[in-house]
Amino acid sequence: MKVFLFLADGFEVIEAMTPVDVLRRGGVDITTVSLTNSLTVTSSNGVVIKADATLGSVDILGGDALILPGGYPGYENLKKNDAVGRAARLYYETGRLVASICGAPIVLQHYGIGNGHKVTGHSCIKDSMRDFIYTGKPVEKDGVLLTAIGAGHALEFSMAILESLCGPEAVIKVKPGMEL
Amino acid sequence: MKVFLFLADGFEVIEAMTPVDVLRRGGVDITTVSLTNSLTVTSSNGVVIKADATLGSVDILGGDALILPGGYPGYENLKKNDAVGRAARLYYETGRLVASICGAPIVLQHYGIGNGHKVTGHSCIKDSMRDFIYTGKPVEKDGVLLTAIGAGHALEFSMAILESLCGPEAVIKVKPGMEL
Repeated sequence: MKVFLFLADGFEVIEAMTPVDVLRRGGVDITTVSLTNSLTVTSSNGVVIKADATLGSVDILGGDALILPGGYPGYENLKKNDAVGRAARLYYETGRLVASICGAPIVLQHYGIGNGHKVTGHSCIKDSMRDFIYTGKPVEKDGVLLTAIGAGHALEFSMAILESLCGPEAVIKVKPGMEL
Repeated sequence: MKVFLFLADGFEVIEAMTPVDVLRRGGVDITTVSLTNSLTVTSSNGVVIKADATLGSVDILGGDALILPGGYPGYENLKKNDAVGRAARLYYETGRLVASICGAPIVLQHYGIGNGHKVTGHSCIKDSMRDFIYTGKPVEKDGVLLTAIGAGHALEFSMAILESLCGPEAVIKVKPGMEL
C-alpha cells in the first residue's frame, strides 16, 4: 500500500499528522508531499515540517490513496494546485481512495470530482459543496470518497482510511499501542 | 500564558502536535523545544519537525507549564536529560502544571517528582510507576500533575491542559473550529 498526503503551506497539523501516524503504525507506506520546490512546509499555526518529498520528485499518480488535510489557507492552496486536482480526479476515476478533511473537500467541488456523492467537511465549506450531498457527519464514506468534518475528528478519519486500505483487522491491531 | 513542550528525538507526533495545535487555537504562547543543539527533531515514525527553540536558547524555567510527549525512544530521551528533570521538578515545586502523556510520566518516577500522586500513562510503563498511584484512566489530574495514557487520547489531554491553564471557557471556545 502506497499513500500520498499533500502538505500545502497553511495545513492543519493534527489533520496531517494523525493519518501519517496511524497509517505508519498500520504498516502503510505513506509519503508526505510538499506542493512547492522546497521540502519545508509551515502549518496554519506555525509548525514547520520537512516533507518526505516534493511534488516534482515523486510519482504521485502511482499510489493507492491520496490524503488532503485541511487548515487555512492550506485547503485554498490545495484547491489552487492543478496537479492536486488532476491527481484526485485520476484516483477517483480509477477507483482509488481520495480522503479529505475539514476544508479540503472543497477540492472535490472545485474540480467536479464525484458530484452527487455524500460528503462531509468543515461547516465553513458546507454552502460551497453545491454539487454534493453534504451530511455534516464526523466521517463520511461514499464510494472512494472519504471525507471528515474537522481536526477534532482526525483520529476517526485516520482509522477510516486505514480500514478502507487494509481492512478492519488493521484498525484492531493499531489501537492497543495508542491505548484505544 | 507561556508553555514549553519538549521535543526529543523519537517523540510521538500526535502527542506533541495536538497540544501545540489546541493551545495555539486557545491563544496560549507555546514553544516547542529541541533537546539537542539542532532545531531539527525526528518523531518515532520519521516525521521531521523544526522546533521553535533549542534547550540552550530559551529560559525553560520561566513558563507556566511544561508538556512532555511520549513516543519511543522519545520518552527515554526525556528521562535521560537532567535539564528536563530539573525543570519538571521546579515547576512541580512551584505549583506550575507538568503535563505528560504515554511513556513520558516515567520522567516523574525517575526524578521522584510528586511521589504518591495519582497518575496514568501507557500500559508499558505501568509497572515502573512504583512511587505513584497508577489509575490507568485516559487522563488523570492530581494537583499540578496532568497525565494521559497514550496517543489515542491526545485530544482530551490537550483540552485538559488548556482548561487547567485558561479555564473551561477556553475549551468551549476552541471546540467549534475543530468541529467538536
